[in-house]
Amino acid sequence: MTSFSFERELRFGDCDPSGIAYFPSYLNILNGVVEEFWAAVGFPWPELITVRKIGTPTVHLTCDFSRPSRFGDLLTFKLRIGRLGGSSLHLEHVVSGADGMRWRARQILAATSLVDHHAIPWPDDVRAALVAHLNVDEETEAAPS
Amino acid sequence: MTSFSFERELRFGDCDPSGIAYFPSYLNILNGVVEEFWAAVGFPWPELITVRKIGTPTVHLTCDFSRPSRFGDLLTFKLRIGRLGGSSLHLEHVVSGADGMRWRARQILAATSLVDHHAIPWPDDVRAALVAHLNVDEETEAAPS
Amino acid sequence: MTSFSFERELRFGDCDPSGIAYFPSYLNILNGVVEEFWAAVGFPWPELITVRKIGTPTVHLTCDFSRPSRFGDLLTFKLRIGRLGGSSLHLEHVVSGADGMRWRARQILAATSLVDHHAIPWPDDVRAALVAHLNVDEETEAAPS
Amino acid sequence: MTSFSFERELRFGDCDPSGIAYFPSYLNILNGVVEEFWAAVGFPWPELITVRKIGTPTVHLTCDFSRPSRFGDLLTFKLRIGRLGGSSLHLEHVVSGADGMRWRARQILAATSLVDHHAIPWPDDVRAALVAHLNVDEETEAAPS
Repeated sequence: MTSFSFERELRFGDCDPSGIAYFPSYLNILNGVVEEFWAAVGFPWPELITVRKIGTPTVHLTCDFSRPSRFGDLLTFKLRIGRLGGSSLHLEHVVSGADGMRWRARQILAATSLVDHHAIPWPDDVRAALVAHLNVDEETEAAPS
Repeated sequence: MTSFSFERELRFGDCDPSGIAYFPSYLNILNGVVEEFWAAVGFPWPELITVRKIGTPTVHLTCDFSRPSRFGDLLTFKLRIGRLGGSSLHLEHVVSGADGMRWRARQILAATSLVDHHAIPWPDDVRAALVAHLNVDEETEAAPS
Repeated sequence: MTSFSFERELRFGDCDPSGIAYFPSYLNILNGVVEEFWAAVGFPWPELITVRKIGTPTVHLTCDFSRPSRFGDLLTFKLRIGRLGGSSLHLEHVVSGADGMRWRARQILAATSLVDHHAIPWPDDVRAALVAHLNVDEETEAAPS
Repeated sequence: MTSFSFERELRFGDCDPSGIAYFPSYLNILNGVVEEFWAAVGFPWPELITVRKIGTPTVHLTCDFSRPSRFGDLLTFKLRIGRLGGSSLHLEHVVSGADGMRWRARQILAATSLVDHHAIPWPDDVRAALVAHLNVDEETEAAPS
């Protein structure tokens, strides 16, 4: 698991009357990318959420939209872990088209109990899987030679 | 025009399988609030976008989600202009429920030509209307006595 | 409770790059109208779904879209009960703009247990409320003189 | 081009607080499948809509939802042309999960001018491509031996 790169064509239904991506649709797509990330880490949301009653709501989001995307554009979503806290996970996203970066985002997820929607520490097995990914990813990035 | 406060009930279709607001749906609602703001300022988007070919895409967004909302919750969206730049508009949003603030956002819109999607200065009449609103709003907030 | 008529402005985010309403967004709005209908009948979905664990999923839908709507259009959604079955509810929708009907839909909802997603008979109190509405509505429509 | 079968995992953001697919999201996915179909036929929507100013709005839709889908379910969307009219295209959709059919839909698209949103006959090249697909598809289905 050395790469979290997802390709997604921008669809008609993702765009608005000005002919470019509607930013709430961008975030809907981003959420799907994060969902795939969790599956790749070994904790698919259906298990985490439905079985273990652990949610990962977004508590912070910063987006910079540099260049517009049009429907039909093929976009690449790249995601890396920025930081792993006691009950938080910082993700950094870069979204690119044929001409380079279109937008980027920093997102913080919080581990929560779905019983009362309060923050909880990451369970040990979830933390271990995130750390394993973090290390693999760092090594991959640190050793290009 | 002294108030930009909009009430909106959180609907079933705005929520996700964990039972709380889906954040991309929150941003879809927020975009509707901004659309109403433009109508109140005197430049409804259908005129601005379709007739005058001026877009106001979001170029920056920062959100902090403090507390979850459940479907059926009545939310109040408040919006104020933070700053008016040459071709930008900074908006500050606070979204509250019965128990206080649920989330807040800072959003920067850019004036763009819909012909080439490049930034343009605000047209004089649009700028004048935004300034008028800014002043009315500041006076309203500055003179509560 | 003699009328189920809801006004809703078509928003930027409801429309697509061809400049008219995106039909899945139309159905998202329609679902919100049905949600308001249930609240008016006396059984808001948050109570029905979250507390009583009764769902009302759509099992059938027929739509005819006659004329396009553009963003900024003010639409009126009218809804009436067509038929009330043992565990089903047939709704008839007409959506109009300034120039008359834009689209219409027939929708069948089924009462289901959210424990196993199987059909159940309408509980007595829910049925009574729907019947009361049905009668009020019929009288209202039957006595225009 | 003998098959229009698309796989799509049902995502968290496609589902609702009752834990199953939200039907307007289903239709948003369906629209993406139709978009891919047009690309496969040789007339991607960005070309048809943006360059040639031809729209293909949905004028009729009938859906039967037989069984619920949960997030994480892998769905197969199959599409065939039911009939090709002078300015209409009838599509038949079947959506299946691991346990068989989940829902089906009949959809009629109309060729329209995006200048005035009125119906137009299919242009000759578009019609030829649809007919070619129709024939290939019929042969494929007619000759299983």
